[in-house]
Amino acid sequence: MSAKFSTEIRVRLPETDSLGVVYHGCFLTYFDVARMDYLRSLGLLEKFRRGESLNLVVHASADFRSPARFDEVLVVHVRVRRIGDTSVHFDFRVTLKADGRLVAEGRSVHTFIDSATWEPRRVPEDFRAAVLAFEVSPLDEKA
Amino acid sequence: MSAKFSTEIRVRLPETDSLGVVYHGCFLTYFDVARMDYLRSLGLLEKFRRGESLNLVVHASADFRSPARFDEVLVVHVRVRRIGDTSVHFDFRVTLKADGRLVAEGRSVHTFIDSATWEPRRVPEDFRAAVLAFEVSPLDEKA
Amino acid sequence: MSAKFSTEIRVRLPETDSLGVVYHGCFLTYFDVARMDYLRSLGLLEKFRRGESLNLVVHASADFRSPARFDEVLVVHVRVRRIGDTSVHFDFRVTLKADGRLVAEGRSVHTFIDSATWEPRRVPEDFRAAVLAFEVSPLDEKA
Amino acid sequence: MSAKFSTEIRVRLPETDSLGVVYHGCFLTYFDVARMDYLRSLGLLEKFRRGESLNLVVHASADFRSPARFDEVLVVHVRVRRIGDTSVHFDFRVTLKADGRLVAEGRSVHTFIDSATWEPRRVPEDFRAAVLAFEVSPLDEKA
Repeated sequence: MSAKFSTEIRVRLPETDSLGVVYHGCFLTYFDVARMDYLRSLGLLEKFRRGESLNLVVHASADFRSPARFDEVLVVHVRVRRIGDTSVHFDFRVTLKADGRLVAEGRSVHTFIDSATWEPRRVPEDFRAAVLAFEVSPLDEKA
Repeated sequence: MSAKFSTEIRVRLPETDSLGVVYHGCFLTYFDVARMDYLRSLGLLEKFRRGESLNLVVHASADFRSPARFDEVLVVHVRVRRIGDTSVHFDFRVTLKADGRLVAEGRSVHTFIDSATWEPRRVPEDFRAAVLAFEVSPLDEKA
Repeated sequence: MSAKFSTEIRVRLPETDSLGVVYHGCFLTYFDVARMDYLRSLGLLEKFRRGESLNLVVHASADFRSPARFDEVLVVHVRVRRIGDTSVHFDFRVTLKADGRLVAEGRSVHTFIDSATWEPRRVPEDFRAAVLAFEVSPLDEKA
Repeated sequence: MSAKFSTEIRVRLPETDSLGVVYHGCFLTYFDVARMDYLRSLGLLEKFRRGESLNLVVHASADFRSPARFDEVLVVHVRVRRIGDTSVHFDFRVTLKADGRLVAEGRSVHTFIDSATWEPRRVPEDFRAAVLAFEVSPLDEKA
């Protein structure tokens, strides 16, 4: 997976466990932090924050390739793989900043919902347009 | 501190850190879980759940006496030390179930607020009455 | 999925987020707590605790079917779906205790490793035997 | 409290709870992240990471002044208030970056221990010297 967007996250002590490595469940948080950074960079987070454009996580998965440890800096790469009628599919790849080693990969799927009824609704046009404009433009930034 | 109420919590893997022991911040969660169990046992949690009787944590502190590890069972003792006009003061003591060793002690102070304005309001009379009835009755259960 | 083993978990306040529901990443913790309870019930946790029988999570996934909220009691059903040469595959299903509503489903895959080299090693025979004895016996308990 | 060192932390979704604000226990993590940043900036974190210079949290407390919400950027100010024979005392102050509003204040006390016996030991001279050199120099940076 190649991604134009990435964000850096330094591992916090409470994210490690007594095996000495990052607890696997924390990677869903890392994915989410990176996704929020991605949305903020495209101007799409503000409506979510105000509750005007809600989406629910309906699926998340992760494959853990190698351990990460306290105080290491991770690079979380994000891209939107697909936008359906009501859903958005994200891909993630986490590498170690120091040496580029692959740490984890993952996916999440989000469904837009009506903020009153929590029923699925179409992906808003401004969301779709902003993501497509970013993703299909030439990979000239951080590819 | 002697307390009539206690609850048991088994240490989860993500609550430990790479030093091999429970991360100190998790004890505020343990205190909180025990406090909710205390309130539920007195019939005082339902209004909080429904948002009709809100309170905010305004202070929390903890002294860490000895480490706890993955899968150990902790006993969290709780009592209300004081009820003021708008505030409730809780004391906590965490021991290891296996041998009674003292693990941590702590306190928290909560202020009742109006659910609309988030301004302080008097501790509800039913809350005050239920807690006093429990705390001042003879220590005949788990003292 | 039908499972013979299940465990109950009450949702804690810090496990919810500002959307008012359990944060999706917490379900990996719930799966893990249930898995540990499963292993403990089969007498297989003690060696893990002592570091004599380590395994790593190499994959985890979850599908989120409906929201869970603060103080609700979840029932987490667990079973081992498959044991390979070096890996163990778990299935999870989370329901609401109050009404049986499906909340989430998930899977995780774990690879046994040598505690010194962290290289994959065969699933220990006592582990394999204990799980098979439990899983293939008639579904007479909590099916 | 005036402090020469501060670090910025953006509130993550899982750090909020269903009351819509940051869960109070997360502030101990924020204090800790800021403390680690402080130690790193003084060149004192590396020995801790390698397990050569361990310290335990023996006390932590926090006063919560106003709520923080998802995606808000917090500024966590840190200083060492006192270094004793075996202990180091930290002060924290958390403000909202957007408007400087006070969010929380806190303290933590850490005891240096021998990495083999976990018995208290004197604060290492290089630690003491580096902190004093930083703290007593004129408040010319971010006071």
